[in-house]
Order: sequence, then structure tokens, then C-alpha cells
Amino acid sequence: MTFHLPKTDTDAEKSSPLLLQAAKKGTPIVPVWFMRQAGRALPEYRAIRGTGSILDAVEIPELAAEITLQPVKRYGVDAAVLYSDIMVPLKGIGFPIEILSGKGPYVAEPIRTKRDLDRIRIDELDVPYVLETIRILKGELSVPLLGFAGAPFTVASYLIEGGPSKNFEATKALMLGDPLTWHTLMQLLTDLSIAFLKAQVEAGADAIQLFDSWAGALAPRHYQRYVLDYSKSVFEALAPYQVPTIHFGVGTSSLIPLMADSGADVLGLDWRVEIDQVVEATGGRLAIQGNLDPTACLLPFEDVKREAEMVLKSASRAPGYIFNLGHGVLPSTDPEILKRLVEFVHEKGNGIISSHQEERRGSQK
Amino acid sequence: MTFHLPKTDTDAEKSSPLLLQAAKKGTPIVPVWFMRQAGRALPEYRAIRGTGSILDAVEIPELAAEITLQPVKRYGVDAAVLYSDIMVPLKGIGFPIEILSGKGPYVAEPIRTKRDLDRIRIDELDVPYVLETIRILKGELSVPLLGFAGAPFTVASYLIEGGPSKNFEATKALMLGDPLTWHTLMQLLTDLSIAFLKAQVEAGADAIQLFDSWAGALAPRHYQRYVLDYSKSVFEALAPYQVPTIHFGVGTSSLIPLMADSGADVLGLDWRVEIDQVVEATGGRLAIQGNLDPTACLLPFEDVKREAEMVLKSASRAPGYIFNLGHGVLPSTDPEILKRLVEFVHEKGNGIISSHQEERRGSQK
Repeated sequence: MTFHLPKTDTDAEKSSPLLLQAAKKGTPIVPVWFMRQAGRALPEYRAIRGTGSILDAVEIPELAAEITLQPVKRYGVDAAVLYSDIMVPLKGIGFPIEILSGKGPYVAEPIRTKRDLDRIRIDELDVPYVLETIRILKGELSVPLLGFAGAPFTVASYLIEGGPSKNFEATKALMLGDPLTWHTLMQLLTDLSIAFLKAQVEAGADAIQLFDSWAGALAPRHYQRYVLDYSKSVFEALAPYQVPTIHFGVGTSSLIPLMADSGADVLGLDWRVEIDQVVEATGGRLAIQGNLDPTACLLPFEDVKREAEMVLKSASRAPGYIFNLGHGVLPSTDPEILKRLVEFVHEKGNGIISSHQEERRGSQK
Repeated sequence: MTFHLPKTDTDAEKSSPLLLQAAKKGTPIVPVWFMRQAGRALPEYRAIRGTGSILDAVEIPELAAEITLQPVKRYGVDAAVLYSDIMVPLKGIGFPIEILSGKGPYVAEPIRTKRDLDRIRIDELDVPYVLETIRILKGELSVPLLGFAGAPFTVASYLIEGGPSKNFEATKALMLGDPLTWHTLMQLLTDLSIAFLKAQVEAGADAIQLFDSWAGALAPRHYQRYVLDYSKSVFEALAPYQVPTIHFGVGTSSLIPLMADSGADVLGLDWRVEIDQVVEATGGRLAIQGNLDPTACLLPFEDVKREAEMVLKSASRAPGYIFNLGHGVLPSTDPEILKRLVEFVHEKGNGIISSHQEERRGSQK
């Protein structure tokens, strides 16, 4: 597994190689970005965002681009993350979906039977505003732009439950009780994720992340049988583009050996695992991203620093490492803390990693 | 680790040894019980329960005993589980706590500072109604009676958050930001768990389970540093009683190697792990309980059977196995499904386990 640099010199000048090279040892600085770095924690976001649905906001390219840029300016992170939502491609195929403020996605008529599948018309994907946002950003950014999509399972869970879920009862009922319909739905959503990601990369996204946020609700045997192959197909379809790919899930500790086979370059981790154990379990085949508990960022900076240091130490055996939280920035986070955290990781990250590597070599003698 | 049989012949006659002997290979029948087997899934429960708080219901020993007996009669499970709640000992020390219907525990004035700790007066534990319920049950039961308590971390999380939590922000802020207060609180709650469990065992409980339901919210390094020793102390304090002990958590895949050192006899698993991998990771030191996804029980029985079979196969390497769900019975579960599941595990469980053991031996040759 290697990361590929941008293809032309012009691109290379415009894009900081930090994030894109994170899989190589000896990156001069540990790259850092935050999931949900654009959003409610930022006063400048609240100032321009308005009160409408995010699905409407992403349809205004100038607004979406500005929101995408805000955290890059404020925090000095090494990647911009397209302001978007995993529900966007569903809206892009005309599937009736809403996002309710403070509640999440809402599907008035959930997918429950084979017949419901006719309502998902992949061929009609049309998201010109997303592509326009990317084009605007490419003209302004000096760091790589990350595109993303929801993984087939996570998107399926919203479509079947009709919204966020605690137990995923309807999702599992369909998966275990009507596998034929399940597999057809998953194939449709795989095609949708692929089409959405390809469009982003072709418009200029430099790397992509696949969010399988709720895969952690599954037994490993069910993930393997009903989910893994579809996420694999997504990464396979993106391989020709040679952009770095990141595979992320929450509460997926026991799925890691399976997720490591999905074909992604980087495994995004929540905070419930230790990076060194993940590196061991995956044979050091994948670069690692993430792992700082987002709640740690609610503490005074001295505590944040100590927690970040523990993450960096644990990352010392990873073949490549991108600093990030284990899930999205919590809305109550003080932006000043994140800014100082970026500075800390940039200044001390590689030093902590190398001194821990030496310590370990010393203790092995 | 061994399980201990009841001490007198009279006890031995009254208590089925099935559950208590589950750690020994060759138990004639795989024992089975369900977390939350008493409760909303049962019409006979809804008929007698009334609408008041569970904290009031457990104060009526005849009612609590009857609710405890209902699933034993209906399902033919191999253990009765005391109808109680992990918040009961807090009420028993006069700490102001409520349980709101459909919402869970509610603490109007949460614990946040060192000074708040003065409000937790362990010495005053007084739960005569719980002990009376146990005495009534011991006269009527022909299967072992399981007592339980919340583990210090899980109880602490309710006291600090003031109720159920998604991100445990206040809990982690106290744990990571004010470790001195944290450790003092955890010691207090450890003493409370011990006192509550000792009282149950002395009144006649045949085995106990410690619920650390929310420990899975923690990074392994934090669990190890701030939590594990307290759960260990609970099991240590119970050791002289020689009753089997079960340690259970949800979403604790990455904590399993640590939880395996807590001193419990049995590790209770949710459905997010494969039993055979847990047995390998823990060196086969502990018996295993659980693992069937509770949502599987919402399916037609043919599907339930197939899922139960997969769990039983995966349990074939465990040094002892108690069949159970990976979390509580969902309220929408059809009791008839659970009844048939108990019959299935009793009739076929050991056969499935042994034939899978032979298969494995065959494939190793």
C-alpha cells in the first residue's frame, strides 16, 4: 500500500503533500484534521450557516465552499473536508429525504420490502452543486480536499429505520430475515456511493473517506457476510483514480481485522481501541487515522495535550499516521483548544512518535 | 477457576446445578437465561406491574418476587434474576434518585465536585425489601437465583451525567480532569456495590452479575487506569462467598483482555464479538455467557434458530458456556420465540457444541 502524490507539478504545488503522504514513514510533520471540523463549534459557521437544512445549504456552492474553508483558516489543519452530508447522494437521485435539526436524517417512507427498492434510481444521480463547490475550493485551497460518502450499510440503516436508530431492529430484520432484498439494496447503495465518490474525485477531491459510522452495531459474522464485500467494491471502484482512501467506523473494535481487508489505504479509528494493538492485528498493512476521544477536547489544554500525547505514542508503530479525533468534533468544543491542538501535533507530534520508537527499540535490546 | 456447588444437600436439591456448573465441560444441558427476562415483553408482567417507578415496585417484596418468577415459569430458563435495578442501592442509602418511565435514571443534582461526594453515605445502606424478596424466592424457586449490581463506572456515569448519556462528557471530564475526586467517587461506589452484593448473597442469591453496561464508552487505556481496579475489588470482596460471578459489559470488545483479569468466573459478552476469538484472547481462562443479538429474537423462529446455532458453534471452545442474549430482551420480543429458544438450546445446544468440536478436531488432523 502506498500513497500517490498528485499527478502534475501544478497540483503538487497547490496541495500540501502532508496528508497524502501520511502513509510514508518520515513525513516531516504529522498531518492533522478533525471530523466535523466545519460546523457548530465555530462561531463563524453559526454566523453564516442560517437555520435551514444542511441539504439546502450544500446546494449553495459559495456557502458550502466558505464553510469548508473556515476550519482550514482557523485551525491550520492539513486537509479541507467538503461540507456535505452522507444523505446528499440520496437527495441527488430524487429520493425523498430530510435532515431534521438536532435529530438527523428522516425518511417518511422507509425501505422495508423488495418493492420499495424500485424507489432507488441510481442512474439519476445529479449533484451539480457539490461539483461546483469542489471547483470553487480547488481554486482557493492550499491543502488537499477530502471528499466523502456514507458506506452502503450506514446509508441502508437510515433508509430502513427511517432515521437514526438505537438497536437497528428493522435493519437487522431485513438483513437476517430477507437476505435477497438486503443484498439487492446493498448493491444499489454501493453503486450510489461509487457514483458519488467518483464524481467528487473527478471534480478534484484529493482523497476520500468512506463513513461506515454504524457498522459497529453488527456481529463480526454478520458484517463479514452482509456488509464487507460492498465496502470492498467501493474501494475497488476508486482504485484507478489513485487517490488515498480512508475507511472509518465507530465502535468497530472487533471488525478491524475484517475492515482492514476492504482495500482502503487508511483505517480511521474511534477512541475505543489502542493504535498499537490495531497495528499488530492488521500486520501493519494500513496507515492509521484518528483515536483521540472527542470528549477529551472539552478539557483544559494541559489535559488535552496529555491525552494527545498518549495517542501519538500509541501511533509510533503505525506505517503512517494522520492525527484526528475518534469521531466528530463535539459542538461544545472550544475552537481555541482545537487550534492549540493542531499546533501541538505539528510541533511535537513527530518528536513524540520518534522518541517512543527509540524507547521501544531500547527496551527490546 | 471453578464453579462451586451449593454447600448443603438441601440446597443442592433445590437448586438446579446447570447454571452454577456451566464452567465445567460436559454440563448435561447448556444452561440458558435472558437479561431482562422479567419485564415488558411479558403480558403477565404488564398485567401486575402497574405504572409506578421500578424503584417503588421493588419495595413490594411479593410483587418483585412474582415478577422474578414469571419468566422462570413461562420460559423454563435455568436461572431466576432478581427483579431489581442498578439504582436500588443508591436509593438504599437515601441518595435522591428517580427512574423516569422510558427515559431511565434521573439525578436532579448530579455529582460533579469533591464536595458532592459528601452526599454519598455508604454506611446507611438499607434495603430490607430486597432481602425479603430474596427470602420469598428461595422458598419457591427450583433454579438458582441471580443477584446483581451496577459496576462502579456505570453507576458513576449516571450520578455524574444525571441520567443516561450519549457521549459521557461530564463523566470523562471528571475522570480525566479531576482524577482525585474520580478515584474517591469510584471507591465509594465500589464499597456500595460490594455491600449491596454481599447483602444479596447472604440473603440467598446463588450467583451474581456485575453490570458495567457503559464501560464500552472508554478507551482501553482509560478503562485500565480509572476503572478496572474497582471492578476487581468487587469480585475480590465476593470471593469468600464462593458464588459464581459474571462480569458483563456492552460494546467492550477492546476491553475484553482487561475485563478478563477482573477476577470474575464468567465473562458476559454482547453480540459484537465472536466467542471463539474471545476464548483465544483470554486463554480460555473464563467461562462465557451471552452473545446472541437481541434483535435476532424479533425474527421468525427459523431465523432465530440459525442465529442461535452460530452462537453455539462459536462457543464450542469455551471452557464453559451459559446461553444468553448479548443485551437485554427487547420489549417488542414475542415471548413464544424465547420459550422455543430455551427448548432449542436445551435440546440441541450440547449436540451442536460437540459436533462442532469434532469438526474442528477433524480439520486439525
